[in-house]
Amino acid sequence: MVLNGPNLNLLGQREPEQYGSESLQDVEAMCRTFAEKEGYSIDFRQSNHEGVLIDAIHEAGVQIKAGEMLGVVFNPGAYTHTSIALHDAIKGAEVPVIEVHISNVHAREAFRHNSYISPCAEGIVVGMGTFGYLLGMQGLIHKKG
Amino acid sequence: MVLNGPNLNLLGQREPEQYGSESLQDVEAMCRTFAEKEGYSIDFRQSNHEGVLIDAIHEAGVQIKAGEMLGVVFNPGAYTHTSIALHDAIKGAEVPVIEVHISNVHAREAFRHNSYISPCAEGIVVGMGTFGYLLGMQGLIHKKG
Amino acid sequence: MVLNGPNLNLLGQREPEQYGSESLQDVEAMCRTFAEKEGYSIDFRQSNHEGVLIDAIHEAGVQIKAGEMLGVVFNPGAYTHTSIALHDAIKGAEVPVIEVHISNVHAREAFRHNSYISPCAEGIVVGMGTFGYLLGMQGLIHKKG
Amino acid sequence: MVLNGPNLNLLGQREPEQYGSESLQDVEAMCRTFAEKEGYSIDFRQSNHEGVLIDAIHEAGVQIKAGEMLGVVFNPGAYTHTSIALHDAIKGAEVPVIEVHISNVHAREAFRHNSYISPCAEGIVVGMGTFGYLLGMQGLIHKKG
Amino acid sequence: MVLNGPNLNLLGQREPEQYGSESLQDVEAMCRTFAEKEGYSIDFRQSNHEGVLIDAIHEAGVQIKAGEMLGVVFNPGAYTHTSIALHDAIKGAEVPVIEVHISNVHAREAFRHNSYISPCAEGIVVGMGTFGYLLGMQGLIHKKG
Amino acid sequence: MVLNGPNLNLLGQREPEQYGSESLQDVEAMCRTFAEKEGYSIDFRQSNHEGVLIDAIHEAGVQIKAGEMLGVVFNPGAYTHTSIALHDAIKGAEVPVIEVHISNVHAREAFRHNSYISPCAEGIVVGMGTFGYLLGMQGLIHKKG
Amino acid sequence: MVLNGPNLNLLGQREPEQYGSESLQDVEAMCRTFAEKEGYSIDFRQSNHEGVLIDAIHEAGVQIKAGEMLGVVFNPGAYTHTSIALHDAIKGAEVPVIEVHISNVHAREAFRHNSYISPCAEGIVVGMGTFGYLLGMQGLIHKKG
Amino acid sequence: MVLNGPNLNLLGQREPEQYGSESLQDVEAMCRTFAEKEGYSIDFRQSNHEGVLIDAIHEAGVQIKAGEMLGVVFNPGAYTHTSIALHDAIKGAEVPVIEVHISNVHAREAFRHNSYISPCAEGIVVGMGTFGYLLGMQGLIHKKG
Amino acid sequence: MVLNGPNLNLLGQREPEQYGSESLQDVEAMCRTFAEKEGYSIDFRQSNHEGVLIDAIHEAGVQIKAGEMLGVVFNPGAYTHTSIALHDAIKGAEVPVIEVHISNVHAREAFRHNSYISPCAEGIVVGMGTFGYLLGMQGLIHKKG
Amino acid sequence: MVLNGPNLNLLGQREPEQYGSESLQDVEAMCRTFAEKEGYSIDFRQSNHEGVLIDAIHEAGVQIKAGEMLGVVFNPGAYTHTSIALHDAIKGAEVPVIEVHISNVHAREAFRHNSYISPCAEGIVVGMGTFGYLLGMQGLIHKKG
Amino acid sequence: MVLNGPNLNLLGQREPEQYGSESLQDVEAMCRTFAEKEGYSIDFRQSNHEGVLIDAIHEAGVQIKAGEMLGVVFNPGAYTHTSIALHDAIKGAEVPVIEVHISNVHAREAFRHNSYISPCAEGIVVGMGTFGYLLGMQGLIHKKG
Amino acid sequence: MVLNGPNLNLLGQREPEQYGSESLQDVEAMCRTFAEKEGYSIDFRQSNHEGVLIDAIHEAGVQIKAGEMLGVVFNPGAYTHTSIALHDAIKGAEVPVIEVHISNVHAREAFRHNSYISPCAEGIVVGMGTFGYLLGMQGLIHKKG
Repeated sequence: MVLNGPNLNLLGQREPEQYGSESLQDVEAMCRTFAEKEGYSIDFRQSNHEGVLIDAIHEAGVQIKAGEMLGVVFNPGAYTHTSIALHDAIKGAEVPVIEVHISNVHAREAFRHNSYISPCAEGIVVGMGTFGYLLGMQGLIHKKG
Repeated sequence: MVLNGPNLNLLGQREPEQYGSESLQDVEAMCRTFAEKEGYSIDFRQSNHEGVLIDAIHEAGVQIKAGEMLGVVFNPGAYTHTSIALHDAIKGAEVPVIEVHISNVHAREAFRHNSYISPCAEGIVVGMGTFGYLLGMQGLIHKKG
Repeated sequence: MVLNGPNLNLLGQREPEQYGSESLQDVEAMCRTFAEKEGYSIDFRQSNHEGVLIDAIHEAGVQIKAGEMLGVVFNPGAYTHTSIALHDAIKGAEVPVIEVHISNVHAREAFRHNSYISPCAEGIVVGMGTFGYLLGMQGLIHKKG
Repeated sequence: MVLNGPNLNLLGQREPEQYGSESLQDVEAMCRTFAEKEGYSIDFRQSNHEGVLIDAIHEAGVQIKAGEMLGVVFNPGAYTHTSIALHDAIKGAEVPVIEVHISNVHAREAFRHNSYISPCAEGIVVGMGTFGYLLGMQGLIHKKG
Repeated sequence: MVLNGPNLNLLGQREPEQYGSESLQDVEAMCRTFAEKEGYSIDFRQSNHEGVLIDAIHEAGVQIKAGEMLGVVFNPGAYTHTSIALHDAIKGAEVPVIEVHISNVHAREAFRHNSYISPCAEGIVVGMGTFGYLLGMQGLIHKKG
Repeated sequence: MVLNGPNLNLLGQREPEQYGSESLQDVEAMCRTFAEKEGYSIDFRQSNHEGVLIDAIHEAGVQIKAGEMLGVVFNPGAYTHTSIALHDAIKGAEVPVIEVHISNVHAREAFRHNSYISPCAEGIVVGMGTFGYLLGMQGLIHKKG
Repeated sequence: MVLNGPNLNLLGQREPEQYGSESLQDVEAMCRTFAEKEGYSIDFRQSNHEGVLIDAIHEAGVQIKAGEMLGVVFNPGAYTHTSIALHDAIKGAEVPVIEVHISNVHAREAFRHNSYISPCAEGIVVGMGTFGYLLGMQGLIHKKG
Repeated sequence: MVLNGPNLNLLGQREPEQYGSESLQDVEAMCRTFAEKEGYSIDFRQSNHEGVLIDAIHEAGVQIKAGEMLGVVFNPGAYTHTSIALHDAIKGAEVPVIEVHISNVHAREAFRHNSYISPCAEGIVVGMGTFGYLLGMQGLIHKKG
Repeated sequence: MVLNGPNLNLLGQREPEQYGSESLQDVEAMCRTFAEKEGYSIDFRQSNHEGVLIDAIHEAGVQIKAGEMLGVVFNPGAYTHTSIALHDAIKGAEVPVIEVHISNVHAREAFRHNSYISPCAEGIVVGMGTFGYLLGMQGLIHKKG
Repeated sequence: MVLNGPNLNLLGQREPEQYGSESLQDVEAMCRTFAEKEGYSIDFRQSNHEGVLIDAIHEAGVQIKAGEMLGVVFNPGAYTHTSIALHDAIKGAEVPVIEVHISNVHAREAFRHNSYISPCAEGIVVGMGTFGYLLGMQGLIHKKG
Repeated sequence: MVLNGPNLNLLGQREPEQYGSESLQDVEAMCRTFAEKEGYSIDFRQSNHEGVLIDAIHEAGVQIKAGEMLGVVFNPGAYTHTSIALHDAIKGAEVPVIEVHISNVHAREAFRHNSYISPCAEGIVVGMGTFGYLLGMQGLIHKKG
Repeated sequence: MVLNGPNLNLLGQREPEQYGSESLQDVEAMCRTFAEKEGYSIDFRQSNHEGVLIDAIHEAGVQIKAGEMLGVVFNPGAYTHTSIALHDAIKGAEVPVIEVHISNVHAREAFRHNSYISPCAEGIVVGMGTFGYLLGMQGLIHKKG
């Protein structure tokens, strides 16, 4: 699963100096191509709703236990900094997560420096642009594949 | 009403050393049995969505004003620590709330030590396992029944 | 668009010493009358769901780019203090926002003194009661109309 | 009374990207025109001296008690962030104050985020440019007129 | 054992809006009645001296190891917030403790929000009035009885 | 009652540059002389035990309710900075307290700048040497005599 | 010299539950009567201007060096909490100062708990009402008379 | 212009171990001699009033724009640490300022470590005694002369 | 004197992975043997009461002044982190103290990292197990013997 | 260049649960193989000396300007959290840096959560084990290759 | 090994009231004499370079694993408070370290109160002068010899 | 001695808007010319190694005691903000230091606002560009020459 948090549906329109000009559709296509090359299929989602993202993590947990999924490449957007509920979802559903941020959050506002996701992530990729999704997928495959 | 916040649907699977091995269905059954013995029926709910929980609090407020409900035994999960909106919902809808936590949140990470719900709760039960729901229901009946 | 965050559906019932006795329907009527007098129509909404509010901001962004809307008069309620995702939505969708608070949040609890919306708002009106919506609309018209 | 704090005599010269290009004389004229239209006269002042501003608040208090004044639209400039004495003057002289800031202080340096005036203001208008003075006057008339 | 910390001997006289009108003797009687009904006897104590409370915890530890006691329902009063020595006593003597507070300490001054007892308590009951002692005893019996 | 906290029995020996060279016996004599001149007798005590001081405050409360005492001139020594239990004793027993410090605690270490006694004291005298006891007694007589 | 800071000219009108109903003229009369009884004359002043208060401290310093004045009983009002310049004036002009506050500043807002004057004062009297001025004068006479 | 803030009129009398034994008249003479040697005249001022200092900065701004002045060597005294209004004056009037402190403020109390002037100064000279004024003048001439 | 604070009577029973398996009686015997070998006798005490420890420090002060004691090897237990009164007792009675902790407090909870005793101790030994008492006695003899 | 900071020479020996069992020689071999496959050669270094690492960054800067190097994959070890000098070296020498950490620093001690390198890094890979070096190299090639 | 950090080569010259008048050569001689008496030889080093100290810790680790060394008595000087790299070196090389400070760092500036070495030290000796080295050696022999 | 810390060898290349376009060789030449004119020779050094800078301060201390050097003009670069060891070196070797920063560090990132060097410097020159070295040399000559 490749899971995207709030406002990532605006990708390509929003603050291009931070996020680049590719749309989320472009990212999805790029991820699919890469996954197929590696012999995997992906479930690519985006939501602006914290609850929907929690539900998705729970779903992933069920599939992972069933051996039908490796884990989740997760760009939690702004919920990175505010959602303890997502932290608990990842720990509770025992989902291996690679956290991805397109921009370098450490070079931005102080309120973007804390992540509730990082302490329960298996790996983190920051500031690599949309290419970071592919690195995150590689990391997941390396660890779990 | 017995209201449960995010990730409590995972009960029994998630970190059993923190939360025990009973499922939320077990808790619901236990609560129903207890309520019936005391002569009450209960409306038992769970949601991972902050907005759905706020709506539920509002609903409860309407029924309480109509004299059809005593109050809410509420385990807000991780929203305990982040949701001022739930705080406002409880105050705004004038809902008597007993806050319940299954595990001892004070013996865990620092970010679980603050509660936005506690200042507007009528009572708080922490670390008693799922038995805490029954203590919370007793407290509510004692205060309002 | 006039957008209202969590618990504003309780207006008139909730803590009247803070928020006055008018209902949200009264506010909507007052806003419509004012807008018509100025030659505008309005899209008046309320939601307790953070995700729904983000979606609404995105929608507004599309209409503003199409020249069909001036901007948003936004009372974000308690999400003011906790939602970086709404901050990102406003910046990402490039929506001119006038932030309105009915009560004087600076005279209340310390956790209401920080606003994630203010740094990306074009103007802010606080403590003017429901009349603040009309001042907010004037401000928006003055800037963008 | 429309009262202006330190450095507002530089208006139009100082950091125009923050404060616009109108001079304080332009603001005064705009306020007088508006007040007359509403049937009021105004006493428009500016001082760089904290003590002079306190004295002015005291004077306003006397006139308000005598029923000769509605209140004060007050742009306290940098004293907003440092003057507890002005806070005490407003409370002590029981002066209804609408606090106005031309620029969006919340989008600037951290030391501009605290206001000693806001907790004792009846209303606050921020970031609306000099048009904020007119909104402040409307707010005052709405509350007290 | 039911152990009470400083100033609880004033119960019924002190700030009745916080603590109710029952005296500590009333609480003792209520606890004895409840304990007998459950088939237990209780050792009910109060002291204003931190050292006396530590000694009592140590005594309890000896009796618990001898199988003559279940644990301690402990209302540590103001020492809740300042006594690391009581924290160490509970851990050192391996005493199962249910922490009870009559009033809702989280709705009071900030210096009452920290508890050195909570991290080493088996359960916590807050804000239920003197009825909280009975809930605490139930919790202890449920866990250890 | 004139009540003295920990280490005040060392007066005259301890750090004379902070506390002067008079012994506590000298202070007691000075206080008795002054009280007699004003037509009062005094109960002068000192203890190094927090619990004994709490007990004394409780005793004073009983005598004050019986109309046999005006209040307490209290130098809480180092417990000033650490004892919430003494704060609660004063509030719970409804004892009018004048807090006295011989040295200027504000000119010393930072950990001496906070006082848990001050918020519930009727008056405070600091840095006046042992003469401060007499000023404290005057203040008490002025308020209650 | 008895020196009074900002807003003390409002005494008797301003927040009487904090400051009582006597006017500053009443205080001046009370101080003069007391001083004469003790064989002193006083120079009684008030200003809302920080600079005027600094100048007054400097003047006092000159008279004290000339042996014509004992020191200053100083109620710095809100400048207590913000004026390092007054702190420096007292130290620089070597003026013995007794700091007086009519209300108990420690029982009020947190921003009133810090005093820049206290570390360089010879004594402090807080919360004794206007009677505190007389205690302050006694303290000054005791130390320097 | 050489501008001096509060208490600098006490120079030579005040804490000589911090500030040396020269009077402000000595400093003025020293500065005039130096300026003449470099071919400049100076306007040397001191005030204890924050407002007067702001007015002086504004005056300097007018002369600088008229090409009649290079800039200001400014020792803001204690206002360094508290005056955002002076910060705004310097930025608003676009005055090149060299900040000078006679003593080493970094080796003194913590509340002297922050400077609101430094972020808008062109250069800073600290701890060089009164010789620092001459270094400040050299710096100004080097940058602007 | 070898003085032991709260809960050290539990030594050998309490958290053996932190404190080892020797009892306080073992420590006493070990200390006596060592002292005798060095030609000293010791007064070995333990108390859970802060006041009793203060009294003991005062007693030690008297004997030290009489030349009958070298100083105190003091393990203040949890009062290390909370007792300013013990700090004052050591300074006031002028007692040379070697502070000893059996476990490495710096490798434990954050609230054990501050010591009010350390700033007035002559030496500190941490984390050496009960052998640290002997090192402390050596240090005392080296300094004072 | 692949640059390694302090203690990375211990890789394989040090805390294998954090860092895995591969030695730095294994990592070097793995990196060389990968680089050759991609058509690059690498300069692989390690030092425990902050100054040597700064010198290496400067060297890299020279080669990058000469077009002989793409950038640096840098694991700064513990200097991540303390070295502003390395931050300045990267910015000053204009070296594109990918920051790599083998373990998940965000799941460890709080003092490992701050990075002075991240704000000036082009990308960051955390918690991927030694595989992270390869992801870092890919990221560098993707950005600069 | 006895290892000494920055500026300890100045011993005997530097601030003798803090560090005494013995030179590091005196300390070395004293240590050698003591070690020989106990049947050990020592490797005594000093460096002002953080990297050299890390290298030395690594070397010690190799010898300890080879059974040729007991551990390190380490006075890290100012790197105590700033070097996470030394912390990692000790943990990574699994070196038993006794941390020694000649002066009482807890009675000095606040920035000397934190130690990155203490959490990974086996024991700590502070404020015992140069005699502390011998106590540290005893502690090491007691634990490992 | 003119001593330069990390990255100053990049001068002229690194961030010219902060540091200007002169190289360190230009600065050295400028300093030599100035020194010769004043009748002094200089020892001009730069190092990126904290240990080398400490060694240099020690060397300077020896020459100063021998009367062969006046002191050190020291630009510590980024070690300003992190090196307590350099602070100790300056105090320990009793070296008069004038601290120089080319750019205005107070107008940059918050982590550049603290200086460990300033409290032990004799004077500080900030933001004057490379001309600040000459002002620093003048200051040193004025104080010590």
